Amino acid sequence: MRATKPPAAPLYTACPNDLARHSLAWPRRSEPVVSNPAVPRLVTANAGPLLALEQKIVDAMPAIERWFRLQWQDHTPPFYGSVDLRNAGYKLAPVDMNLFPGGFNNLSEGMLPCAVQAAQSAIEHLCPDARNLVLVPERHTRNLFYLANVARLARILRQTGLEVRIGSLSDEVKEPTRIELPSGDVLTVEPLVRHGAKVGVAGFTPCALLLNNDLSAGIPRILRDLDDQIIVPPLQAGWAIRRKSNHFAAYDVIAAEFAQLVDIDPWLINPAFGRCGEVNFHERAGEECLASNIDFVLGKMRDKYKEHGIDDTPYVVVKADAGTYGMGVMTVKDASEVRGLNRKQRNKMSVVKEGLEVSEVIIQEGVPTNELVDNAVAEPVVYMIDRYVVGGFYRVHTERGRDENLNAPGMHFVPLAFAGSCNLPDCGSSAGESAANRFYAYGVIARLALLAASVELERTAHRVDSASAAVMAAVAG
Amino acid sequence: MRATKPPAAPLYTACPNDLARHSLAWPRRSEPVVSNPAVPRLVTANAGPLLALEQKIVDAMPAIERWFRLQWQDHTPPFYGSVDLRNAGYKLAPVDMNLFPGGFNNLSEGMLPCAVQAAQSAIEHLCPDARNLVLVPERHTRNLFYLANVARLARILRQTGLEVRIGSLSDEVKEPTRIELPSGDVLTVEPLVRHGAKVGVAGFTPCALLLNNDLSAGIPRILRDLDDQIIVPPLQAGWAIRRKSNHFAAYDVIAAEFAQLVDIDPWLINPAFGRCGEVNFHERAGEECLASNIDFVLGKMRDKYKEHGIDDTPYVVVKADAGTYGMGVMTVKDASEVRGLNRKQRNKMSVVKEGLEVSEVIIQEGVPTNELVDNAVAEPVVYMIDRYVVGGFYRVHTERGRDENLNAPGMHFVPLAFAGSCNLPDCGSSAGESAANRFYAYGVIARLALLAASVELERTAHRVDSASAAVMAAVAG
Repeated sequence: MRATKPPAAPLYTACPNDLARHSLAWPRRSEPVVSNPAVPRLVTANAGPLLALEQKIVDAMPAIERWFRLQWQDHTPPFYGSVDLRNAGYKLAPVDMNLFPGGFNNLSEGMLPCAVQAAQSAIEHLCPDARNLVLVPERHTRNLFYLANVARLARILRQTGLEVRIGSLSDEVKEPTRIELPSGDVLTVEPLVRHGAKVGVAGFTPCALLLNNDLSAGIPRILRDLDDQIIVPPLQAGWAIRRKSNHFAAYDVIAAEFAQLVDIDPWLINPAFGRCGEVNFHERAGEECLASNIDFVLGKMRDKYKEHGIDDTPYVVVKADAGTYGMGVMTVKDASEVRGLNRKQRNKMSVVKEGLEVSEVIIQEGVPTNELVDNAVAEPVVYMIDRYVVGGFYRVHTERGRDENLNAPGMHFVPLAFAGSCNLPDCGSSAGESAANRFYAYGVIARLALLAASVELERTAHRVDSASAAVMAAVAG
Repeated sequence: MRATKPPAAPLYTACPNDLARHSLAWPRRSEPVVSNPAVPRLVTANAGPLLALEQKIVDAMPAIERWFRLQWQDHTPPFYGSVDLRNAGYKLAPVDMNLFPGGFNNLSEGMLPCAVQAAQSAIEHLCPDARNLVLVPERHTRNLFYLANVARLARILRQTGLEVRIGSLSDEVKEPTRIELPSGDVLTVEPLVRHGAKVGVAGFTPCALLLNNDLSAGIPRILRDLDDQIIVPPLQAGWAIRRKSNHFAAYDVIAAEFAQLVDIDPWLINPAFGRCGEVNFHERAGEECLASNIDFVLGKMRDKYKEHGIDDTPYVVVKADAGTYGMGVMTVKDASEVRGLNRKQRNKMSVVKEGLEVSEVIIQEGVPTNELVDNAVAEPVVYMIDRYVVGGFYRVHTERGRDENLNAPGMHFVPLAFAGSCNLPDCGSSAGESAANRFYAYGVIARLALLAASVELERTAHRVDSASAAVMAAVAG
């Protein structure tokens, strides 16, 4: 029945913003004025391209949302993902897209209902008659921060009505192991077992396996050639096959189309990159390829900086093309720097997670971050499930500069109440004034990266068999 | 990239519960202890069937969610809906299902992101390439409380990226009319216009029309026989065609299947009902049908009360089978009461909204409400968009009893932070202890009614042409 009479009093309260207790600022200004404790005021130093960019995104919201709806008719979103963004003021771009996000525990509690709703949608698309799901975590079962992520993820999935068990690839997990977390949560991690062409945990064969393991060590035999079981994200999303350069090649196309839609220079949302396929840091092989790609990217940046009137110093980030964890990352301002690497630097660049040797390298335009949280340099990380933004946080590093990698020991996380923001732009106020609008723009750019990941996974689906075998041989060798 | 380091400090805060500032209690006990201000503690007077029922629902969550997923494969949810629930302690049941919900303004602000996400899903199913939508409100454009609902709904829809205009059926709206609301929101209401087989507002032809008008006055000519435009909810959802008895007949089947799933007596979630098709209160026609149906429902209730050890006094609610707004509603404890109605009572029952004559009547088992908010009798109302619970509130009436209709002048609304609750049952605690679990159960029963509405609309789709013509003739006559 309908409400025809007035409420006794206005009883609404907004979600508290987790950032309210932190000061947020852009550099080169005095302390920000937090006028409304519920909405952090981000003070921007640049009145030019930044505002222009964000305002264009907010203004084009109807066109953008319709465009995404149509894109998702043609492309299936990955089950989940997180995107590292850098906001330089003049430029807002993804610098990394993670298909096995490991920081669900860093999201605000207030975002959980939206995350559950998005997971319901993902599972409807995946296998609506599912009762059971096995979550396959990373092997390092002693990292309590990572395990808190697994616990949070399992909680979200269970709240969609699935029975969820944790099945580990680790040889150390020989029987169901109960782990108590500092939060009070209890995780039971069980060994993955295979019977014929089905995999699961003892007495439990799921319809689908959800990987939260990025397969840096190759595609394990136990997960190959399954019969009728779905693995998400698909095996080619693992670092055994995946290459950052494939992702950013797909992103180039997406960003160009989007830039046309909102009438901007695609460079404003897209970092330039190059790739070297045969680098051996130990043997100093491939240095010329590196140097010429660095020159190429720096040259492109100088042109763009000139075009847009930016007086920052261009730098590139050299990283493993197949890698994670912020390992194997180097910041370079001149091509000559890669010609005379000392042993320590070469060792650092040689190896990423699980001892995987680096031979392929991406040279990516460095996007400085212009955001500060509590006076420390910060970058936003946006989390998505299915096609929906479900939360985010600032990665903050008190000892790093605005042109450095923040994904490094010493970082910490400040959750964003992306809830009322990533899908709720405030069309009445200007982007410079409204944190909600900045967060909407973050959600849009993150979804562009998600869409690029979807295209990337379509393009690389055929590589599962050949490439993974080669990588396994390489790891074994 | 992955989070490997600890957050600086636990920074999460839960959504504030709008109910925290209100006392919630069940009767027959001393004042409730609100131990955690974020989660209202509902103290229950009955340790028996209520706890058993809610606990069964929470325990069966995986089976329930899977069952809903499969049901939604076969049935399309209505675009939106709201359900009035009554929680008697021993019984939790829907008593009304509104397909044109009018209280979106009464939902908590914190629920908006979930509502937007659900609306995105609804629109994807409806017409993914939509740019434009016309929202058709009720005619009474001077009711500021209703207009606040329209403004909230338009805001939710706009945040999915649609361009939304308000197109009125009212003859009084002859040109675009700007209405300022007490909240500061501004609504522009325009006349609906038709060109050929398309309807819209001036210069704006939408892909879809969303009705927030329950068509009590019949299906207007302007909405009939459209070419290629979608109307949601469909025309048979309007009271010109819809009958409560059809809804509850569909609910009978859904409730029986669900009861089997969770192993309960279906009566615990389903109010008994009867129907009289030819009643004329003015002419005292149909009194015998009414009296015998009242006897039948009361008799069934006495049996069930005996079976479950309940010592309440059974009562039935007599209401228009096609009606809304809490008009034409009468509470009856004995069949003799309908035999000697005085003129005032007969007048009250004769007419519902828009002067529609009552000739069909539903006789529904009365479910007393056992919930109190600030010591006033309350009933939960749950709001849904697509297949998702997006919020709710308590309808509270300080001057009514627990066996009375609360949808009456003097009622007010207390929004629920259904956010962290309707899809987040807390499986670790018992239902009696946890408001979250009670709210999960509310969300489940509300979704059963939504599913019944979906079945009901499938069954009555063919009635649009014949029935609406007849109703229009009746209204004209």
